[in-house]
Amino acid sequence: MKKSDFPVDRVRRFLEPGPIVLVSSRRGERTNIMTLGWHTVLEFSPSLIGLMISAGNHSFEMIRGSRECVVNLPTTALTDTVVRIGNTSGAQIDKFAEFGLTALPAAEVGAPLIGECHANFECRLHEDALVDRYNFFIFEVVKAHVAPRPKHPETLHYTGDGVFMVSGRVVSRRSLFRPGML
Amino acid sequence: MKKSDFPVDRVRRFLEPGPIVLVSSRRGERTNIMTLGWHTVLEFSPSLIGLMISAGNHSFEMIRGSRECVVNLPTTALTDTVVRIGNTSGAQIDKFAEFGLTALPAAEVGAPLIGECHANFECRLHEDALVDRYNFFIFEVVKAHVAPRPKHPETLHYTGDGVFMVSGRVVSRRSLFRPGML
Repeated sequence: MKKSDFPVDRVRRFLEPGPIVLVSSRRGERTNIMTLGWHTVLEFSPSLIGLMISAGNHSFEMIRGSRECVVNLPTTALTDTVVRIGNTSGAQIDKFAEFGLTALPAAEVGAPLIGECHANFECRLHEDALVDRYNFFIFEVVKAHVAPRPKHPETLHYTGDGVFMVSGRVVSRRSLFRPGML
Repeated sequence: MKKSDFPVDRVRRFLEPGPIVLVSSRRGERTNIMTLGWHTVLEFSPSLIGLMISAGNHSFEMIRGSRECVVNLPTTALTDTVVRIGNTSGAQIDKFAEFGLTALPAAEVGAPLIGECHANFECRLHEDALVDRYNFFIFEVVKAHVAPRPKHPETLHYTGDGVFMVSGRVVSRRSLFRPGML
């Protein structure tokens, strides 16, 4: 999947809708992937996002230690893989190998991109003030890669209980917006 | 729309998918409503959620001052109203009156519920450590009200540029989950 550079101050296009994402990390020679549904956009520029990474995850110490990660956006083509990644631990398996995913080198961070995902957002830790109390990390997106097609990929939105909502259909209300609000 | 009490430790069902929400507030005799897409679940119990409320909003000081709000979940039936709420300011208009919305009394907070929304989550400020630097508020959901039907309401997920994705269709992968992960 060929991807293009994408402006980091516009990543809300993909993250504000609230999809499940795959967070990849590296510590030394080890890589890992976790599923994550608890995240939010925080600022356009610098491009800040907040991730709640539960301390029980194998990825937690890898990310806290390396102060980097990649947020990857899977589409419904990867539904089963998303679930399997969330139901296994990197303490036991190499998830890239186990699930046949392609680890590609990132431009700005050591963590790998997941080739099969629609978009990849390279992130560097910006603020750790709430990590100890809430496992809440604020990252700056320092580089973004997005596949040009499909224009409106179907994404997965987790509800708990093994059930996802699917987003993809779009509705425009541009005509109702004041120009300064777009 | 008749609603039932809903367990506060299960509000991720509605908020983790990342919908646009309407945040209602009260300060003295004044009420207001804002649209918000930058939020995340942070903890099951206590039921914590994080909201990035830009300081430019009229709601910001009302919420910071009162330390309360209600997070209301609109469905696609309210699409135009959601956009209009986001394109006007409570400094100029009374949004409940202007948009024909019903302000209902909450059980635990002073801010009003929006009767026409599918769900209402009453929130009390839990942590303000990142409010000054990032406009990021951590609230505890202290009471939740949810309409029993439809079971899978269509929700709006904002992408910027006046365009929303619509979620509603669900896919289950319960069979792929380890029991402890459900």
